[in-house]
Amino acid sequence: MKRIGIIGASGYTGFELVKILARNPDIEFAALNSENADGARMADLYPGFDTSLVYTNYTLPEIRRMGLDLIFLAREHGYARQTYDKFNCPVIDLSQDLRFKNGSVYGLPEIFREHIGNSRIVANPGCYATASILAAYPLVRTGCVNHIIFDCKSGYSGAGRSPSYLNDPEHYHDNVIAYRLSDHQHGAEIAVCLRRCTETEVDISFTPHVIPAFRGILCTSHVLLNQRFARDELIDLYRQCYEHEPFVRIFPDRIPELHDVQHTNFCCLGGFESDDTGRVVVIATLDNLGKGASGQAVQNMNLILGFAETTSLT
Amino acid sequence: MKRIGIIGASGYTGFELVKILARNPDIEFAALNSENADGARMADLYPGFDTSLVYTNYTLPEIRRMGLDLIFLAREHGYARQTYDKFNCPVIDLSQDLRFKNGSVYGLPEIFREHIGNSRIVANPGCYATASILAAYPLVRTGCVNHIIFDCKSGYSGAGRSPSYLNDPEHYHDNVIAYRLSDHQHGAEIAVCLRRCTETEVDISFTPHVIPAFRGILCTSHVLLNQRFARDELIDLYRQCYEHEPFVRIFPDRIPELHDVQHTNFCCLGGFESDDTGRVVVIATLDNLGKGASGQAVQNMNLILGFAETTSLT
Amino acid sequence: MKRIGIIGASGYTGFELVKILARNPDIEFAALNSENADGARMADLYPGFDTSLVYTNYTLPEIRRMGLDLIFLAREHGYARQTYDKFNCPVIDLSQDLRFKNGSVYGLPEIFREHIGNSRIVANPGCYATASILAAYPLVRTGCVNHIIFDCKSGYSGAGRSPSYLNDPEHYHDNVIAYRLSDHQHGAEIAVCLRRCTETEVDISFTPHVIPAFRGILCTSHVLLNQRFARDELIDLYRQCYEHEPFVRIFPDRIPELHDVQHTNFCCLGGFESDDTGRVVVIATLDNLGKGASGQAVQNMNLILGFAETTSLT
Amino acid sequence: MKRIGIIGASGYTGFELVKILARNPDIEFAALNSENADGARMADLYPGFDTSLVYTNYTLPEIRRMGLDLIFLAREHGYARQTYDKFNCPVIDLSQDLRFKNGSVYGLPEIFREHIGNSRIVANPGCYATASILAAYPLVRTGCVNHIIFDCKSGYSGAGRSPSYLNDPEHYHDNVIAYRLSDHQHGAEIAVCLRRCTETEVDISFTPHVIPAFRGILCTSHVLLNQRFARDELIDLYRQCYEHEPFVRIFPDRIPELHDVQHTNFCCLGGFESDDTGRVVVIATLDNLGKGASGQAVQNMNLILGFAETTSLT
Repeated sequence: MKRIGIIGASGYTGFELVKILARNPDIEFAALNSENADGARMADLYPGFDTSLVYTNYTLPEIRRMGLDLIFLAREHGYARQTYDKFNCPVIDLSQDLRFKNGSVYGLPEIFREHIGNSRIVANPGCYATASILAAYPLVRTGCVNHIIFDCKSGYSGAGRSPSYLNDPEHYHDNVIAYRLSDHQHGAEIAVCLRRCTETEVDISFTPHVIPAFRGILCTSHVLLNQRFARDELIDLYRQCYEHEPFVRIFPDRIPELHDVQHTNFCCLGGFESDDTGRVVVIATLDNLGKGASGQAVQNMNLILGFAETTSLT
Repeated sequence: MKRIGIIGASGYTGFELVKILARNPDIEFAALNSENADGARMADLYPGFDTSLVYTNYTLPEIRRMGLDLIFLAREHGYARQTYDKFNCPVIDLSQDLRFKNGSVYGLPEIFREHIGNSRIVANPGCYATASILAAYPLVRTGCVNHIIFDCKSGYSGAGRSPSYLNDPEHYHDNVIAYRLSDHQHGAEIAVCLRRCTETEVDISFTPHVIPAFRGILCTSHVLLNQRFARDELIDLYRQCYEHEPFVRIFPDRIPELHDVQHTNFCCLGGFESDDTGRVVVIATLDNLGKGASGQAVQNMNLILGFAETTSLT
Repeated sequence: MKRIGIIGASGYTGFELVKILARNPDIEFAALNSENADGARMADLYPGFDTSLVYTNYTLPEIRRMGLDLIFLAREHGYARQTYDKFNCPVIDLSQDLRFKNGSVYGLPEIFREHIGNSRIVANPGCYATASILAAYPLVRTGCVNHIIFDCKSGYSGAGRSPSYLNDPEHYHDNVIAYRLSDHQHGAEIAVCLRRCTETEVDISFTPHVIPAFRGILCTSHVLLNQRFARDELIDLYRQCYEHEPFVRIFPDRIPELHDVQHTNFCCLGGFESDDTGRVVVIATLDNLGKGASGQAVQNMNLILGFAETTSLT
Repeated sequence: MKRIGIIGASGYTGFELVKILARNPDIEFAALNSENADGARMADLYPGFDTSLVYTNYTLPEIRRMGLDLIFLAREHGYARQTYDKFNCPVIDLSQDLRFKNGSVYGLPEIFREHIGNSRIVANPGCYATASILAAYPLVRTGCVNHIIFDCKSGYSGAGRSPSYLNDPEHYHDNVIAYRLSDHQHGAEIAVCLRRCTETEVDISFTPHVIPAFRGILCTSHVLLNQRFARDELIDLYRQCYEHEPFVRIFPDRIPELHDVQHTNFCCLGGFESDDTGRVVVIATLDNLGKGASGQAVQNMNLILGFAETTSLT
């Protein structure tokens, strides 16, 4: 039995962690911290979820004294930066705070699996970055890519549970909202990761949109190359790259959609079409709360705690 | 009083024509042809629309004998190609059949206004092409553009009223559907138009998506240039280009959304941001049934029949 | 291997029949007639459904010569009345044509199971009637009921696939539409059935509404009684009545929702609350395309052809 | 110029008050208190609303020193009960706290108009009660009514902005949720009001549902009478009762929908149909944030401050 804690357990990603981990009989929820929901029953906030679990609000010293096996940080950006080194067990952080910071491992198993198992601090990748990197990696490492434009469409759960611009029903409903057209933060996360794992320099452009769906991301990757590839070559390239990956699916025949990935830990890749200009389109879809956040965090936990990598994820 | 006919009056674009034209007291609906709805009252198909109009199914000879002032063709692709020269009055076709064909004028008033007024055959531009061309034209004619990638998000009314893949509620709901990733038809329409009006050659890539909204298109134009522009320069460039246009709006301060254009004849342009790679993003939004189809068709009709260009459109 | 035919196989209920029956390896689709889709591949109309099936349009004599084991009629109202006696095998009709007509059995297994197995003509109950009758039956047969008001909320798939008032997205979206406030047809179907199976006379009022969901019906039954029942008594009454029913679920603790029944053949019953006036509320939910149409039709087929009653339905 | 304050200005009803009052040039927003949003610009929370207004968090003594003309309380239930007598100006409370309490007037102008203008404390009616009472009042005062069952369907904005059971997108989406089947609080509000204004005793049953629309309530009133009325008699009865009411509309020809009332202060009444059992159906629709809350509150303010009753509401 492994005893785990979740700090920030009442938000979308925290609740998703609980739902996934509840399928693993060897996991015990020792601490489900929530500042807002302290003392509330989880079943009250999420009525469809049949559970007797109750939110807590333990202090850091109390958490330390519990001697937990692993802690997930599912709080807002800024929290992990101030607390990540105060725990006495491995930590997986779902915020952007620790990505590519000293001492942390970037928790994308398809690329950095060998470093994750022994890590004390895992920075869980962002949802946009996970989709974009998995879509781009096989092509970028050929050395033939000049520039990739990632045009991403995200469900509004990506904006979290607190009332805001992007999750206001009268706003997102029957609408498409483009925001941060030349996003630096997500673009940088993608660029740094691709540079590290391919030792290649490519131009990265990134533009996100919110669409009227609750969960899921579709990433349209427009890839500009210095060489032409036939469609079959591209499909082979992607198949070989992800041959042994349990959570990456190559679609040779149709284009993946949000429906293919909602409530799963899969990233589906398809498209692989070129046009007259030589641009190649690769489409990636994933669930922003699954492979884009909590599912991937559990995948990382499985590697650290010695469970089979797919435990509670299929 | 001008007497007009609509062939294909019961589909989305046909009904939209009726709704718009009903605001013009100098228009008489002499023929509202519909093969499927012949004899039905329009108020039965569109209950919110308070009207005594009735669908008909006149033959071509009957239509000719009426001596109409103008006819809209709002049928499926293929119909206009076989019939456009059989009418004895000006024709505005909303399908793709006659675009850039001999004898027709491309009905985009912002660019070809001077040719439309005296035309006998107007090919109404496609919704995707209208958004893409208006987004690109001011920059392309500077001669500094290498390549534009149009990544478009469309409401599902773009798929028409007949049951199909893209307008099946269980399919589009909570989903994003990418299709025809390297679309040749729409890309070609955009490329041909831009070449004609700017005498410049640029690479055009085009990728459409359907999102869970009923009406509206958001076109994200990723523009690759051989020169840098400051944001203010770009805004000036667009403002000057469209200074006297009643239906083009420049948004200097925020990004246009579908909510800005639904049920209007406006095309809103915003963004104008560059990133480190030099890529510029221009966002265009319009209503695919308004400026993207029936609104623009009425704008063309106004030019031909001598009404003020904005009649019944504001 | 049983060879079955579906007349009207391309509408919502026809397609649902195919999806359900495809799970039964002992069923062969010998005829999938569709006037509109003749010759089309089913995968073209329903892209998510991986199949090589093709629509046909056989004549009645051709159908007869096939010597089928059973035929489903899934056409519009009026078709079955003219054709039901022209087939040489058992017929299950999903329209309202044959309900409580001479020679037909009303295909509600929970009440008329013993008559269905040997029947040549089964009139499949309507979706509203199935929900209402199952909600009312246990109480009505106590003889204590004076009047029941069924206030029903239906998804818009109940309006079928052909464009109409109730399935126009701009109409049903963000809306509630009450229609036929004092509906005689559905009210009569409910009243006749309850009278036959309980030999009791109760007043029946029925009012339907369309809400912005695709599939599912929630029936709020306001029951006026001449006697008071404690909540526990009511729950016991319902549990005993449906004790051996595989597709009726009693919810003692929470109120059933559409999410509990979508894509299933279940009818969920809950509520059982009284107020000061003595009115009792019983809530029934079911999927209008499942237990409310095609699921129930397959349940009836299973009884006729000798399959286990739950085959391909769980 | 009248100086007003809103306590609880960042929730749905508080923001709606601001939007409506912004149309009145003689209103100055002296205090827009919000505990959560103190210091934030309103345009940040509601980006579509072009304003320089900023949220504040003044103390009660500070509010008193401002010498305001009127204060709206738009906080959660419980707040007004503790504070209503601490202000030095008229107060309109939108919670349930003060309804039918000593010293307050029930702010339903159609019935209690004469008492509102001079009132110091107005208890703004609930959204469900406003719809139900306006639907029932003309019939109840004939003395012929035995029992009314109000079956109400509400948009999920009725559940407020704080994350909860009823406004969780994964929950309400594609669903209907019945809750508090035998609701005592709303039923009692309706019963007490009808008793006061008609001096008649009728049985009241009340059942609410949440449907997947953002704003609007449709109230289906099933009225059981001891006498029959022809449809024309009923329409006359309602027309006469509300003849001079600017915000009540009688629909003789079609059934009102949410689309008829969203973003307005109207209550639309229609139906007026009887069935064989003698039950009459009256449908009422209103916007739960308009006539059901903030619109009605402004209507009350207009009466108190001496504006024309329809100011900023049409």
